[in-house]
Formats: sequence, structure tokens, C-alpha cells
Amino acid sequence: MSKGRVLSIQSHVAFGYVGGKAAVFPLQCLGYDVDVVNTVNFSNHSGYRRFGGTRANAAELSAIFQYMEGNGLLHPERLLTGYIPGGDALSAVTDLARKLREHNPELIYLLDPVLGDSGKLYVSADVIPIYRSILPLSTIITPNWFEVEVLTDVQLTDLPSLRRALKVLHTEYRVPNVVISSIPLREWLKDSLPSDLRPPVGEDISDSDYLLSIVSSTHGNTTENAPSIVHARSVTCLPGYFSGVGDLFSALVLGHYEHSKRASPEDNSITAIADAVAQALTKTHAMLSMTHMHAANLPEDERQPTDEELDSKEPDRVVRRMRGRELRLIQGQDIIRNVERVEEHMGLWDSFWTESQ
Amino acid sequence: MSKGRVLSIQSHVAFGYVGGKAAVFPLQCLGYDVDVVNTVNFSNHSGYRRFGGTRANAAELSAIFQYMEGNGLLHPERLLTGYIPGGDALSAVTDLARKLREHNPELIYLLDPVLGDSGKLYVSADVIPIYRSILPLSTIITPNWFEVEVLTDVQLTDLPSLRRALKVLHTEYRVPNVVISSIPLREWLKDSLPSDLRPPVGEDISDSDYLLSIVSSTHGNTTENAPSIVHARSVTCLPGYFSGVGDLFSALVLGHYEHSKRASPEDNSITAIADAVAQALTKTHAMLSMTHMHAANLPEDERQPTDEELDSKEPDRVVRRMRGRELRLIQGQDIIRNVERVEEHMGLWDSFWTESQ
Repeated sequence: MSKGRVLSIQSHVAFGYVGGKAAVFPLQCLGYDVDVVNTVNFSNHSGYRRFGGTRANAAELSAIFQYMEGNGLLHPERLLTGYIPGGDALSAVTDLARKLREHNPELIYLLDPVLGDSGKLYVSADVIPIYRSILPLSTIITPNWFEVEVLTDVQLTDLPSLRRALKVLHTEYRVPNVVISSIPLREWLKDSLPSDLRPPVGEDISDSDYLLSIVSSTHGNTTENAPSIVHARSVTCLPGYFSGVGDLFSALVLGHYEHSKRASPEDNSITAIADAVAQALTKTHAMLSMTHMHAANLPEDERQPTDEELDSKEPDRVVRRMRGRELRLIQGQDIIRNVERVEEHMGLWDSFWTESQ
Repeated sequence: MSKGRVLSIQSHVAFGYVGGKAAVFPLQCLGYDVDVVNTVNFSNHSGYRRFGGTRANAAELSAIFQYMEGNGLLHPERLLTGYIPGGDALSAVTDLARKLREHNPELIYLLDPVLGDSGKLYVSADVIPIYRSILPLSTIITPNWFEVEVLTDVQLTDLPSLRRALKVLHTEYRVPNVVISSIPLREWLKDSLPSDLRPPVGEDISDSDYLLSIVSSTHGNTTENAPSIVHARSVTCLPGYFSGVGDLFSALVLGHYEHSKRASPEDNSITAIADAVAQALTKTHAMLSMTHMHAANLPEDERQPTDEELDSKEPDRVVRRMRGRELRLIQGQDIIRNVERVEEHMGLWDSFWTESQ
């Protein structure tokens, strides 16, 4: 079950499952040797509000890469980068990614451009241009919808703007595979979707009950007017926020991605990335459901909902909530290891580029 | 499959499997949530000769522990400590261990006193008294024979000296379980062993073909003249040196240790620690055999034997050897996960304390 090497460059927390702690174990379970470079060493994730530890600076990261290179230990088949603190450290990682790409054109680089969420940046603005410069080195990117907006300078408000954003990523930044793991399924988006990709009708559902996962790949039978193959799937949204989900999802996408599954020129129904994302979505969702069930069964004290006023009066309220919502990665490890083929594929959004609006 | 939490405090390397990289994944596979505090962040292990990165100082380690404590994240059922660089950092870990032990008398603390090997210290001598002061906090220690000598100031040259050393550890330092994973099975040791614990006779074997694993526990039916229950097992020795084996072994001992398996006052044939060590030995040996097979099948260039002269002339010779001998932890993960009962128990060394010499 040897799947090759992944070099993972992410944050590390002693307690809980975000960054490397959410990504490395799943990749190891899938059979990858994972080389692990920690960009920070923190006690716990920042959602607890109280956290501390050390950040690796650019010189420290570069030193580790240099020693690895000197010892011939820098030959990963895959590269995974997540949260990187500050522009200098990101530049060091960019240099490394460029070197790895030059040495190995077949390198599969999944870049998770961790910039922010839900309209809020959580890195300094000076890293945005650096992220843009690193995009052309990637094989796959996994931004959330807000990160798509930041990277492309396009607000996602309708189908034409979504097209514009994807075009910028594919053509201007030459990213072959774009995975937007979740966009709230608002009216405009639902209306744009082919009927077979919409959530089941008849139920009394509101916009916030569903998210849409979109995958766009230039590997396939593309044309000038339809520069990518687009797949999508509606997924139900679990209430509340769970940390580390994006990190787990990205790791699973990388772990399941197989170049050889590229669509044939005649058949756009499945692409390598759509296949990987289908598996990653299914496993992430199962892990999340398990975590949600666990959190819901905790004593009431440990599952107090978010309330800005109460939370700021009583910081331990936040801490208890966060503790109860850590991913159940260890308890659910069989979900990750499960090698059965996923039945629920991504659906082809055939009319994405051509449908009139 | 929730087994509880382990707090692991060890070295971290980006590439390869020593310290935390050899310990954490196996514990996760066994079902433990592992909280991971990195004492160093290095490129690779020191056996490559070229390595670099950063060491956490005492203040940095203490800060992480304090944030975890402040957030109520310091309630592990088990504690695992390995290589800790320098006296200050070790003191910070000692303070933590003392606090955890005070809060939870049932804490299972496996202390691997990483001091050196084969007659050579690889820490500065000032950490020795600190290690001695931490011993009474431990539940299990896993020194190699040289570390036993350093900690007890007793040279292991015959059965009486081995008894003396164990007595010092059990009574002076109040360690309940001592695991000496491997002592070369020299003539004096072989002659002391009950016949059923000796390696099979008839084969033309030399001293260096076998190692003896010894486990000594004060949990059981002890007396003043026989202060511990001693178990042992002869294991065949694989040629060459593999890094990280001790770290893997200690993690497996901790992972398999179950207090509830303490011997009854009437029956010394099995102790909790002898049971855990039997499983850890079997799994470690299987992993090592797999790694050895892999290394033996590499191109000749990548498996050049140790030769001080050639090695110092050509440092890459060492690097290639080290790379080829990294533990096959990922490829062999099913060995760790295997929950079948181990058939090969440790044998009771009933006459250990009483046999005349």
C-alpha cells in the first residue's frame, strides 16, 4: 500500500485537529509517507481565543528545506501547503514550491490559499499578492468562496461573476483544477444549476441548509468558450462551526487525486479532480456528522451556542464549545481508510459556460 | 474505539521516523487522541550527520503547557516523554509531569530516559540528575542497558549487578515498571536464564545474534527478598542499526499497557507490563523485519555498510544508508493495527531474585 510521499507544510497545534493535525494522519492512513514541516507550533487553534506558541520564520523554514535538499530528502510526489504565517514565510514556501515544480513537472501540488472566511481576512493583506504569484505553480487549489473573491477580485453574486472568477484562476493564474468546497446555495446559484444538481425539492428548506461544492478542471475536452469542465454537488450543511474541516478536506482531495483518471477527450462526465473531490466530500461529511453527533450529546454546559455577548463575558464558554467540537478524526479513522468506491459522484454541470443568463 | 488521550512530548523531524514521527502515528492507529508537543523541529534525524532546525527552549515549552492548562486541555490519561534537548527544557517537562501526576494519580506515564546508547552519552551530563529526579513520577521507564547503567551507576556485568540496578530503580527511584528492551545476550546473562527462556539450542549462534528483553514490575506478589516480578524474552537481532525503533517500541508499550491486567496476588505468570511489552516486541520486530527486507532489496549503492573511513570521506554514503533504513511505518501500519492477541508472551523468570550465583 505504498502511495508515495507527500510534503505537508502547515500549522501545528498540540491539542486538537486543525492544519497538519487534521491533514497528516488521514494521508498516512491512506498510505502516504508524509514529510511534515510545521509553520507554527501552537497550543491549540485560534478559535479558542486563548492560544500561544511559536511561529517559524522564513529563515527557519528555509534552513529545514535546505538540509532536506542537501540530504536528498526533497523528492515528494505531492506537495500540500496550508496556513503559513506572514509574507516572509510564504515567500520561503513559494521558493520551495518553484524548485520542486522545476525538478518535477509531474509534482501534484495542492495549494490551500488560507486567507480568511465569510468575508473576513485572517492574514495580513500583504500576503495576497504572494498567494497570487504562487497560484501558477499549483495543480489544485481549494479556496472557499471568500478566498476566490480575494484572489480574483471578483464578487460572486451571479453566474457570470462565478464564470469570470473561474476564468481568472484558469487562464490568468493557470490553475488547472479549482475546487470551491462550499458556496452557500443562494437563490441565484440554485436557479443557475441544472435540475439534476439541485437539492431534492418538496422539502421545506431554506438557503442556508445547503452548500454547493464546485470543481472546475481544464483537464478534458475544453473549448475557448467553455475553458473548463465543471462538476458540482449539493451537500447538506451541518449547524455550527467545526475547525479543521477545510484542512481535512484538502488532504483527502490530494490523497485521492489520481492523474491517470483524467477525462478522455470524448468524455467529460468524470475528471480526476471530480473523482477525488467526490471521495473527499463523502468522507469529510461522514467525519463531520460523527463529530456533530458527539458534540450534540455532550453535557449542555459544553455545547453552548455562539453568543457574542455571553462569550466575551465568559471566555471559558468558548473554550468548552471548541473542545466539544474538535474533529473525531481518531474515532472515525475507518471512514478515511474505507476504500470502497464512492457511489455519489459529482454531477457534470454541462451548461455552466454556455447557458444564457 | 476511543482509548483516551496521550500527551506526547518528543522531537519532531520533517523527514523520516524517529521521536514523535515514530510514536504518534502508531498511537493514533491504536485509537488514542494524541496531543503532540515538539521539543525540536529538525529536518531529519542526527544519524544523517547533516541536520538542522530549531529547538524549543524551556520558556516556549512552558508557554504551550500553560495555554493548554488555561483552556482545560491538560487532562491526558497517559503521558509519553522522549528526547528532550538540554536541562532547562527537561526541567519544564518535569514540572509538567509533576503537575499531571498530582492532578491524576492514575496517570500512566511512560518515561523514555533518552541519554545515550552503547556506552556513549548523547546528551550533556547535566541532564542525568534531572532524569533521576523525574523517575519517581513515572509508571513505566524504557531505558536501554546503557541508560540503566547511567541512571543507577551500576555496571551490568553479571546477575547480581543487574539485580542491584533494578533494585535501585524500584526502591530508590520508586519506578513500578522497568522495561529494558534489549541487552546483548552475553554468556553471563545466558547462563543466568532459566532454560525455557534461553534461545533455541543446537544452532550455531554467537552472542550477538540474540538480545534479551527484560521487564520488572513491582505490581504483583512481591516480597522483601524478591521485590519485583521479572519476565524476559530472547529476541533475534537484525543486523545494522535502525533509527526510531526505541521510540516506536515505547509508544507501543504505552499504547498496549492496561492497568487492569495487573497480576493477581496469586499469579505472577503475567503482569500488565509484561503483556504490553509482549505485544510491543512482536509488533516492533515485525516492523523491523519489514524495514530490513526493504533495505536489503535496495540498489547496492543505497545500502553500503557502516565504514568509518569511507563514511567520513563520503558523507552521502551515510545519507543514502540512513534513507534506506527509515522505518516502514506507513507500509506496515496493519501490523500496528492488528488486534489479535499476541501468542508469544514474555516468560516468567521466577528464580531471578533467588537463584544463587
